[in-house]
Amino acid sequence: MKKQILKIVKIGGKLIENEESLSAFLHDFSQLEGPKILVHGGGKMATELSDRLGFKTNMVDGRRITDADAMDVITMVYAGLINKKIVAKLQGIKSNAVGLCGADGKSIISKKRVIKEIDFGFVGDVEVINTKFISSLLENDIIPVFSAISCSNEGELFNTNADSVAAEIAIAFSENYQTELFFCFEKNGVLKDPLDDASVIDLLDTRTYQNLLNKKIISEGMLPKLHNCFHALEHAVSEVYLGGPNLLQKGAQHTKIIK
Amino acid sequence: MKKQILKIVKIGGKLIENEESLSAFLHDFSQLEGPKILVHGGGKMATELSDRLGFKTNMVDGRRITDADAMDVITMVYAGLINKKIVAKLQGIKSNAVGLCGADGKSIISKKRVIKEIDFGFVGDVEVINTKFISSLLENDIIPVFSAISCSNEGELFNTNADSVAAEIAIAFSENYQTELFFCFEKNGVLKDPLDDASVIDLLDTRTYQNLLNKKIISEGMLPKLHNCFHALEHAVSEVYLGGPNLLQKGAQHTKIIK
Repeated sequence: MKKQILKIVKIGGKLIENEESLSAFLHDFSQLEGPKILVHGGGKMATELSDRLGFKTNMVDGRRITDADAMDVITMVYAGLINKKIVAKLQGIKSNAVGLCGADGKSIISKKRVIKEIDFGFVGDVEVINTKFISSLLENDIIPVFSAISCSNEGELFNTNADSVAAEIAIAFSENYQTELFFCFEKNGVLKDPLDDASVIDLLDTRTYQNLLNKKIISEGMLPKLHNCFHALEHAVSEVYLGGPNLLQKGAQHTKIIK
Repeated sequence: MKKQILKIVKIGGKLIENEESLSAFLHDFSQLEGPKILVHGGGKMATELSDRLGFKTNMVDGRRITDADAMDVITMVYAGLINKKIVAKLQGIKSNAVGLCGADGKSIISKKRVIKEIDFGFVGDVEVINTKFISSLLENDIIPVFSAISCSNEGELFNTNADSVAAEIAIAFSENYQTELFFCFEKNGVLKDPLDDASVIDLLDTRTYQNLLNKKIISEGMLPKLHNCFHALEHAVSEVYLGGPNLLQKGAQHTKIIK
């Protein structure tokens, strides 16, 4: 039997920061047919709030550490302000949604990240996606809207990469659904020339990706995003797209990632 | 057929502000048998964050107005920080919970409050409780944890009195459950003498309440709380209790409110 399509859409920082672009995006999102899941990051809003509150950014060996204050701010901004604004906007356009973080219904269980003796603080890597709970929402025509916060089995909240959360949700659902993963960010796709926004690569496969990597054409910020794309494809996700704020519109320019 | 008991518990500001008392309370709460719902306020935390961010409290005719900045802070603190901390703590003690505001699953639909030409800003009064959605969680042994934020049909988030939210949820569920409503706050119940914490009234009926009102013995802060208690009893809620942080423990002192 052909599996039902499930669309998992991740939206990034800049798209969220602008009220108008967010509303336009959510309109496109609400028009998508069939079951769908939204995952959002937080962009600069958490950093801005931290600055206004006088919290210092904690760095070790050039890497950002999420201390308790930073985690509180992230929880306020991601799981509170942004998540509930998105859900309320969706309700306003008659799309029934529920805003969640990983603690809710144990939906995203993670493990604290410690790499080579660097303790990243309240940062977690996804271990388990509770597809049973999330499916119960989908089956009732409710859109799960996730902030990128996960939870340990011991009940600690952890900051988690939003691209990874989207990829891991798509992977977990690939057993029961034909999953399509969309990453919406500020560019219209992966660029051949990082300085030329019009140089979008239509189709990016592993080999071309390796070539671009060798030539150091892929920008720093794109590396983890593309890693998540290929990771998803390798773990049974059907289709992966990268594009701009209008990615969900028919005919929008984008990069399709293939194996 | 005898209806199943559903317990609705509301916790107030001071209990939430202290991490230890909150953990102790959540332990008691998790031990309650059968389906249960938690509703929390936010206490001084939202005001403190507003002050730190330099937002001014907006008053008209001596009444607080919730402007857009204040609503953002409330959404961050109530629906974000406090709500997710409670849910994570419950997960840590193996109680499966989902944190919600009224926008989530259209669970608490409200209407903007305008009284005698005073526009209170982003303040809403409860109109509809979506028992169908909330029941679907209860039936899956998930505890709904509500922050006191509601949502209009048009998708606006509104600040809403947490006592009223708890009472309205209890009333809405009284058709299908035998509902018990618990208000946990800093005193062990309604006091005969507001200056004597030991003067808890065990049983408070409408007549005694009227007497105390006439004698002006009930403190300002207690008036809306008690109004919600009697309102709930008049709308089919079975039992209503008022007490301190240990109210859910067996044998704890409290005031039982009766018609």
